[in-house]
Amino acid sequence: MLVDDEGLAILEEDECFELMGSASIGRVGVSIGAIPAIFPVNFYLSHRTIFFRTGSGTKLSAALREVDVAFEVDRADAIYHQGWSVLAVGQCHEVTEDVELEQVKGLPLEPWAPGNRTHVVRMDPDFVTGRRIVSAPHA
Amino acid sequence: MLVDDEGLAILEEDECFELMGSASIGRVGVSIGAIPAIFPVNFYLSHRTIFFRTGSGTKLSAALREVDVAFEVDRADAIYHQGWSVLAVGQCHEVTEDVELEQVKGLPLEPWAPGNRTHVVRMDPDFVTGRRIVSAPHA
Repeated sequence: MLVDDEGLAILEEDECFELMGSASIGRVGVSIGAIPAIFPVNFYLSHRTIFFRTGSGTKLSAALREVDVAFEVDRADAIYHQGWSVLAVGQCHEVTEDVELEQVKGLPLEPWAPGNRTHVVRMDPDFVTGRRIVSAPHA
Repeated sequence: MLVDDEGLAILEEDECFELMGSASIGRVGVSIGAIPAIFPVNFYLSHRTIFFRTGSGTKLSAALREVDVAFEVDRADAIYHQGWSVLAVGQCHEVTEDVELEQVKGLPLEPWAPGNRTHVVRMDPDFVTGRRIVSAPHA
C-alpha cells in the first residue's frame, strides 16, 4: 500500500473513479478573478466523464472557461473516523452538441435548486488522485 | 430575501458563521503550483477563526503560504433536496505562539488519519458568503 506525505493510503485510478461514481454531490474549485472559490454541485459520472449543470451567464459558468478546474468528491464517516476523497483536475466544456445533449437528458442531473441551470458542463479529467484514511490514531 | 444569479438565497454573514460552526468537515481550495486542488479537513470554528491541522512539510502545508485560500462547508439533504453552502476566503497562518497553541490544544481538532499532523493552521476569513437552496423545482 502506497502512503502519501499526510499518512493516507493512495488510491489507484480505477478505485478513484469507482468511488466518485458512488457519489452524487461534488465540489468544483475555481478562481473567480483572483479569488479562489469552491461550489457544491450535483454531478453524474459517465464513462470517466463528469457532468454537472450551471446557470447561463453565471459567475461559475464564466469562471469555468479555459482554465484547469478542481473537482473533488469525498465521504467521511464520523463514527468510525474513516473516509476517502478523490480529486479530478481538468478543463470543463459546455455540452452544446445536440447528440450529446440528448445523451445527457437521460442522466440523473436534475438540479435541486430553483433557477435556470440550463447549461450542462462536461469535464474529462486530465488526472485523478485519491486518498483513503486507513486507520484512526485515536486513543 | 436576496437571491443570487443561480437562484439561491444569499445568507447573511452571521448565518454563514453559525452554519459553519455546526459542521466539522470542510474543504480547503488551493493551488499546488498551477494546479487547483481541494482537500477535505477536520476543522473547528472559534470566534470566526477557522482552525485545522496539516502535516509538517506536506504539499498542503507549503501551498497554504501567503496566498488566498478558499474554505468551504456545505450540507445537503438528498431526500428533501435542501442544503446550504458557505465559502470563506482569506490567508492561512500557522499557529506557532505557545499561548495560542495552548488555546488550540483544548479544541476538538484531533485528526482522523494517521500521520504527523502537528501543524495547526488558522484562517481569519477576509469575507464569507453563503447560499441556501430555498425550494426544489422537482415535479
